Amino acid sequence: MNNQQLWQRYQDWLYYHSGLELYLDISRMRFDDALVESLIPKFDKAFQDVAALEKGAIANPDEQRMVGHYWLRNPDLAPNEALKKEITEPLAQIADFVEKVHSGTIKPPSAVKFTDIISIGIGGSALGPEFVAEALAPDFPTLDIHFIDNVDPAGIDRVLNRLKDKLKSTLVIVTSKSGGTPEPRNGMLETKLAYEAQGLDFAQYAIAVTMPGSKLSAVAQAENWLTTFPMQDWVGGRTSEMSAVGLLPAALQGIDIQAMLAGAKEMDEATRIASLKGNPAALLALAWYYGTNGQGQKDMVVLPYKDSLLLFSRYLQQLIMESLGKETDLDGRVVHQGIAVYGNKGSTDQHAYVQQLREGVANFFATFIEVLEDRTGSSAEFEPGVTSGDYLSGFLQGTRQALYENKRDSVTITIKQVNPRTVGALIALYERAVSLYASLVNINAYHQPGVEAGKKAAASLLALQESVLNSLKNTPQSLDLATLAAQAGAEDQIEAVYKIVRHLAANNRGIVLEGNLAVPSSLKVGKK
Amino acid sequence: MNNQQLWQRYQDWLYYHSGLELYLDISRMRFDDALVESLIPKFDKAFQDVAALEKGAIANPDEQRMVGHYWLRNPDLAPNEALKKEITEPLAQIADFVEKVHSGTIKPPSAVKFTDIISIGIGGSALGPEFVAEALAPDFPTLDIHFIDNVDPAGIDRVLNRLKDKLKSTLVIVTSKSGGTPEPRNGMLETKLAYEAQGLDFAQYAIAVTMPGSKLSAVAQAENWLTTFPMQDWVGGRTSEMSAVGLLPAALQGIDIQAMLAGAKEMDEATRIASLKGNPAALLALAWYYGTNGQGQKDMVVLPYKDSLLLFSRYLQQLIMESLGKETDLDGRVVHQGIAVYGNKGSTDQHAYVQQLREGVANFFATFIEVLEDRTGSSAEFEPGVTSGDYLSGFLQGTRQALYENKRDSVTITIKQVNPRTVGALIALYERAVSLYASLVNINAYHQPGVEAGKKAAASLLALQESVLNSLKNTPQSLDLATLAAQAGAEDQIEAVYKIVRHLAANNRGIVLEGNLAVPSSLKVGKK
Repeated sequence: MNNQQLWQRYQDWLYYHSGLELYLDISRMRFDDALVESLIPKFDKAFQDVAALEKGAIANPDEQRMVGHYWLRNPDLAPNEALKKEITEPLAQIADFVEKVHSGTIKPPSAVKFTDIISIGIGGSALGPEFVAEALAPDFPTLDIHFIDNVDPAGIDRVLNRLKDKLKSTLVIVTSKSGGTPEPRNGMLETKLAYEAQGLDFAQYAIAVTMPGSKLSAVAQAENWLTTFPMQDWVGGRTSEMSAVGLLPAALQGIDIQAMLAGAKEMDEATRIASLKGNPAALLALAWYYGTNGQGQKDMVVLPYKDSLLLFSRYLQQLIMESLGKETDLDGRVVHQGIAVYGNKGSTDQHAYVQQLREGVANFFATFIEVLEDRTGSSAEFEPGVTSGDYLSGFLQGTRQALYENKRDSVTITIKQVNPRTVGALIALYERAVSLYASLVNINAYHQPGVEAGKKAAASLLALQESVLNSLKNTPQSLDLATLAAQAGAEDQIEAVYKIVRHLAANNRGIVLEGNLAVPSSLKVGKK
Repeated sequence: MNNQQLWQRYQDWLYYHSGLELYLDISRMRFDDALVESLIPKFDKAFQDVAALEKGAIANPDEQRMVGHYWLRNPDLAPNEALKKEITEPLAQIADFVEKVHSGTIKPPSAVKFTDIISIGIGGSALGPEFVAEALAPDFPTLDIHFIDNVDPAGIDRVLNRLKDKLKSTLVIVTSKSGGTPEPRNGMLETKLAYEAQGLDFAQYAIAVTMPGSKLSAVAQAENWLTTFPMQDWVGGRTSEMSAVGLLPAALQGIDIQAMLAGAKEMDEATRIASLKGNPAALLALAWYYGTNGQGQKDMVVLPYKDSLLLFSRYLQQLIMESLGKETDLDGRVVHQGIAVYGNKGSTDQHAYVQQLREGVANFFATFIEVLEDRTGSSAEFEPGVTSGDYLSGFLQGTRQALYENKRDSVTITIKQVNPRTVGALIALYERAVSLYASLVNINAYHQPGVEAGKKAAASLLALQESVLNSLKNTPQSLDLATLAAQAGAEDQIEAVYKIVRHLAANNRGIVLEGNLAVPSSLKVGKK
């Protein structure tokens, strides 16, 4: 296509939402009319599927759950009054709590106000709050947020050590839907130790965000924590940013959560339209379908040209890969679906891996996120007529064009500003695109059997560790790995036993390894 | 293979470096002996190629440059005395400068000591320092570092605004090899404005890291900046962490750069060995070759189970993709080479995209990075015999095992600690693996023609913007896009002109768009 034809294609496929001032351009995906025609019936079904979802259909048959994150931004859509209350009451509770924390009505025992937050959570309980904090927190937030999003002891120590002089004015939010996930549980217990080491009563700093009736909820109640906010059974972790999971920390930082909800609601309305060309999420799903041949054959590289959107790719990585990355389809056929997502930010990445994108393996399509407004206030011109923002814009347009010329496709989303309303809209846009795409390729976007399997594998290794420690306790002499494994009732798991004792030995856990470390079978495991 | 056979394969292929206490395990890549046999001649050639490189061969024929990052950690290897001096003199200069900054001998005009650093650079001048700061900076570094690694005005404003009360004690390091890259140049000029707005004399805070004779070097000299550190012509951006680019900011933060250099040197020695099984970089290259079929057919997912290594995947993304992502091979054949790299950290990612890794598209192999020592000091047991670190370890082993059972291959690198020595060693390991792999697939790892092309595309758009602005200046009435493009001498670039005016209009640059924003061809471009 020549430039004139491309310009026509650009206009033919351009989607513009005037309320949100958001553009979506899929003209640089090289699909043809025949593909679009052939997908119309699938889209019709997809529109029906998401409508059913919104009406309260059981979308997660594994867990017999509804999927209601769309209701969060419009409680009137909730299928019944009880569910509606599950949204409106926590929202009122958040507003009230945040106001009291900001005003100092709720305050720590030995400081005037809370100044900081430690947010403890993982996966769906971390990535949304992290993305939103990076995108939207004011330069000097009302409360400054810090994340413990892993069970790495050194990582936890770093956060707690850096905050040691401020713990006495630091609120702790522990977020765990089930309340039983080991990472946040351990993060909470490690944090509690740090508070206790300073003589601070942890309960007076701690908040739980969890499902009513969970283990965490019971702990919070028994220990008399500051308060507990409910997580809804029908909101999955990766779509929980507009539940208490995301809204509480956002509001505490001084982010306008009503604007986030309003932006998401407006986008939800736009993506409810049962027409491909009038629905930006459907257009996005079309682009994904074409880009990956409906089978994840290419990666999605997400390139926001705006520093504050750095974590958007990681947020989308979770939302898209955890939702779409499935072994079987809804009919039980083995399909190994998914779309790999990665990216950081432009133009920074142009000085890194964009070399490969332009010239190397053609195994991806790109998504550019463009933000029209460069900054608050005016810009200096360091050359006549050229600002820093002009460079940023030029790099984006130049890269999009050059990729296209090298037969690399791209989608471009353009917003005017990064603000709570547009961030809410972007989240809602991608949530819906995932719903529609999942329907196109006939998979369940709302379960995560692989994550459960990972937890089980780890649990069985911890059980093996217990057996190994017991065997060693009962044996006076050093043992070689094979003997130790056999004694621990795991003769065919010598490698796992080796990994366990190697890790224990490195951490002064009463175990020593004697022999040549380069030759594991030479090792004897003894007690120190 | 059953567990017993896997354990044997593990031991057969295990590499252990006793000095660095580093293990490399490629047993979970399913290559067979026939592949290894067939690659032996290629490896022999690769060992010769890197030996020639180290002796000063012209490795970057595009730019007629040698590639000497290996000399940085062992100046005695430099081909001649002049080159050796290009290493030892800046090292001495860094040590002297850092000592004076730390002691307050070199100090800002109106504060006792420098407390912070703004590091301005992009790509190869940013990712290494960012990775090393995250991995190695003490919890309370001697100087605290902040990065401006993009030309995003809002991003620059955020860094400068957050530091506004500390600018008077903040050192500015401007890193730009050529000294002409627009991003660091604009970052520097924006930063200078912020200093001047506070009445601070920028020159007394500014340091340049650049090639002698560059534009930046001339500016630093003319304006009488604090000092300038040289970048070597024969060190590429993505392998510059152990030049002044990485060492200066690291040392200022209080990181032991001699230990980094020593670790890299020790690894360089190990990866100089001309034997596949005795050389960890060769084993890594073998794993990559098998994993991607020597053609980038699968992605490399990097999963360090340690928070402080979060940025390692992004560092490797640049190192590997910019080095290997090439259109043509050394014989000029079109090959579209490369390996896509992405990842964040475990176990966090297990709650995000690992669902897809386990069950979805089988388009990747994983690299686990394991750190044996959980933390400094001992750990609490929240259940009998189980620490937070045991969970982290269990998650890693469980995921590795589960991926393998699902026919997803992986490499595992194990180190005892994250410290300057092991980080230096990891960098050196991957630098050499890239060298060897590039030889295996017959490409030039040391140029980046695509990056240059990207810069040119942006420059031509900025030139077009100038024409557009001139056309508008000379025309009293509003113009439609087609007419404006024609007047700007670019009638076939209406879309590019549209993007330019849309961006200018959003930034109060004297331009207004009238008409229906959803229908670009309806728009008239006028002056405000």
